Amino acid sequence: MDRPLVETLALKEGARIVLLVLDGLGDLPHPQHGGLTPLEEAVTPNLDRLAPRSAMGRILPVAPGVTPGSGPGHLALFGFDPAATEVGRGVLEALGAGMTVQPGDVAARANFCTVDGTGTVTDRRAGRIPSETCARLVEKLRGAVPRVEDVEVVLQAGRGHRFVALFRGPGLGEGVSDADPHREGLPIPAAVAEAAQGMKTARVVNAFVQGARGALAGEAPANAVLVRGLSARPRFPSFQERFHLRAGAVAPYPMYRGVAQLAGMEVIGTGESVADEFGTVAAHWDRFDFFFVHFKPTDMAGEDGDFDAKARAIEEVDRALPALLDLGPGVLCVTGDHSTPVPIRGHSWHPVPVMIHAPHCGADGLQRFHERYARAGSLGTFESRHLMSLLLANAGRLDKFGA
Amino acid sequence: MDRPLVETLALKEGARIVLLVLDGLGDLPHPQHGGLTPLEEAVTPNLDRLAPRSAMGRILPVAPGVTPGSGPGHLALFGFDPAATEVGRGVLEALGAGMTVQPGDVAARANFCTVDGTGTVTDRRAGRIPSETCARLVEKLRGAVPRVEDVEVVLQAGRGHRFVALFRGPGLGEGVSDADPHREGLPIPAAVAEAAQGMKTARVVNAFVQGARGALAGEAPANAVLVRGLSARPRFPSFQERFHLRAGAVAPYPMYRGVAQLAGMEVIGTGESVADEFGTVAAHWDRFDFFFVHFKPTDMAGEDGDFDAKARAIEEVDRALPALLDLGPGVLCVTGDHSTPVPIRGHSWHPVPVMIHAPHCGADGLQRFHERYARAGSLGTFESRHLMSLLLANAGRLDKFGA
Repeated sequence: MDRPLVETLALKEGARIVLLVLDGLGDLPHPQHGGLTPLEEAVTPNLDRLAPRSAMGRILPVAPGVTPGSGPGHLALFGFDPAATEVGRGVLEALGAGMTVQPGDVAARANFCTVDGTGTVTDRRAGRIPSETCARLVEKLRGAVPRVEDVEVVLQAGRGHRFVALFRGPGLGEGVSDADPHREGLPIPAAVAEAAQGMKTARVVNAFVQGARGALAGEAPANAVLVRGLSARPRFPSFQERFHLRAGAVAPYPMYRGVAQLAGMEVIGTGESVADEFGTVAAHWDRFDFFFVHFKPTDMAGEDGDFDAKARAIEEVDRALPALLDLGPGVLCVTGDHSTPVPIRGHSWHPVPVMIHAPHCGADGLQRFHERYARAGSLGTFESRHLMSLLLANAGRLDKFGA
Repeated sequence: MDRPLVETLALKEGARIVLLVLDGLGDLPHPQHGGLTPLEEAVTPNLDRLAPRSAMGRILPVAPGVTPGSGPGHLALFGFDPAATEVGRGVLEALGAGMTVQPGDVAARANFCTVDGTGTVTDRRAGRIPSETCARLVEKLRGAVPRVEDVEVVLQAGRGHRFVALFRGPGLGEGVSDADPHREGLPIPAAVAEAAQGMKTARVVNAFVQGARGALAGEAPANAVLVRGLSARPRFPSFQERFHLRAGAVAPYPMYRGVAQLAGMEVIGTGESVADEFGTVAAHWDRFDFFFVHFKPTDMAGEDGDFDAKARAIEEVDRALPALLDLGPGVLCVTGDHSTPVPIRGHSWHPVPVMIHAPHCGADGLQRFHERYARAGSLGTFESRHLMSLLLANAGRLDKFGA
């Protein structure tokens, strides 16, 4: 793959950049709230002070109409083309579960399932067993199949019938089919390698599935396991390599820490509140050129369909903002990874408002930062993957292209 | 070619979509009409009621500055990349002439021309003979060269010197050069196959050109024919295959029925008026998930440079609209395939206003649907080929991308 233009232009010096991501920030007008969005309704005096002297616009995480998961949403913010940047399902699941995925590891999404006496899968979700049962059975598997050959089996229980299986050892590779028939009424197929690099993985996975079958023989309804999405940690160049940026990530939730690590950032802290997160930034101010700060409650409120909680979450960020501004970031960007509109109660495809505050960002003169004004902003509507270029440019970190 | 992302995300269930295309809808402000466009001047109470609760934007059929023909304009609306999706000239001409182009057929654009005693082309357009003469000569050719070998020759007279020649029989393929010198002063070249699949086509075309020469020997000035743009019907995956949509097309004009068929829709009716067309939609409501309704008079008025006729055509659609709304489409989209501005009297490159009305489209709060408000809409300006993604998203028919 050719190196993206912007990476060839990145300079080694420039201003410090803070990318503040309010997860699921974008929303829709709500008839019950006077046609306002949570961002419009929220009382945000600090953002309001920045707004007229900032540039606004809207970002499209992937493409028009496409609703992104957290992985693609963040990879795009970090300057990757999310449609062309594959992170395997297993790796994303492992990161989301808070597991460390090292180079060489292969991770998979796994289910507890039910098989009958002939080995036919009769329920791919084992009757959706409670999470407590899942935790107990995972513990049982840890004891029964701690390793296969010289490969360590690392398991993490999830919700209901779900868990994550990570295989760590020499010689593992991806390109291995699922040990999952993907529908009921069929036996569990053996995992098959599509190429030589996956041969050992397939063998190890099949042995794990067999071992689990033995260990779960006395259980009901969860008497077997299915494994899918086997994938290795992708090898992305780091922020240092791509942009000459020492990049630090502050994120309380595992998924976002994991994606930041994949993108080559150093995770420097979590934080109980956004004020804590800004404190972490302050404590590491001199060590990094770029800070990614992730704030989750906006997304959670959107998923819950809770308009007021979303507005209050935004206000929490606004209240804490002065501490961040006091650090004097050369470039401050406030945006989201995708929209999570309250009426949809989930991620959506709608463009996300973005605001860039920097000496030469251009002052749009718009009174506040929200969806409606962002439509009229000088940045226009553009794909999220171009945001890093704008941040670098505003930080004086991009060379001129051509003479 | 990789499958487009949106097709990999298409779900099998979701709301019903109606795509109402007012051909050539977009226009320019007119000094003689108070600086308004036809869409601004038209009285459209029904569209006005939808407007504030809808999302608006503008679509670019192909790329900035590029004026599309009807083929690319519609292929883009149907979710194809029009610059990468080739439909041969002959096939488009045949569809536009109302001919059925079956898989395996090869179609060509043909001219009557004048050759001198040495076989040199002296007028590629045979003095632009009247259409009546063209029809008479085509009838003569039908009698003289009804078939070549086991290949049926299907002819359709056009305007002036133009006609369409379609070859139907076993073993025909495309990749055949034109039997047309493309300028005067040269003999008619033989059609030549670029690859084995075109060998028989070239032989049949050359025999047809020779046969026509004999049949027209006593005519003047049209005493020979030229054949160009030899092309086979492309094999596109259907709407069902691409989007899991049962798609029906309502279009009174052959070109649009033809392009809809190429895109894998079922043509379910024509209709004398837009009210008739909506009646056809109603009659087939339960059979389809997606309806393409094509309305031609806006484009014709634009081509005629008739501002008032274009405004009246828009009003005709607006008057009929309640019958369509009464059906309760989950997603209604009103737009055009390109602009046909009255002052230009032809297709143009200007962005086309688009309006999407659906439960989660986002209510832009804009008072009316027209070019000026569309510029301020939440959808922004985007390429027409992404419109299908937005319609699918609004219909709840697109899965999330990535975890």
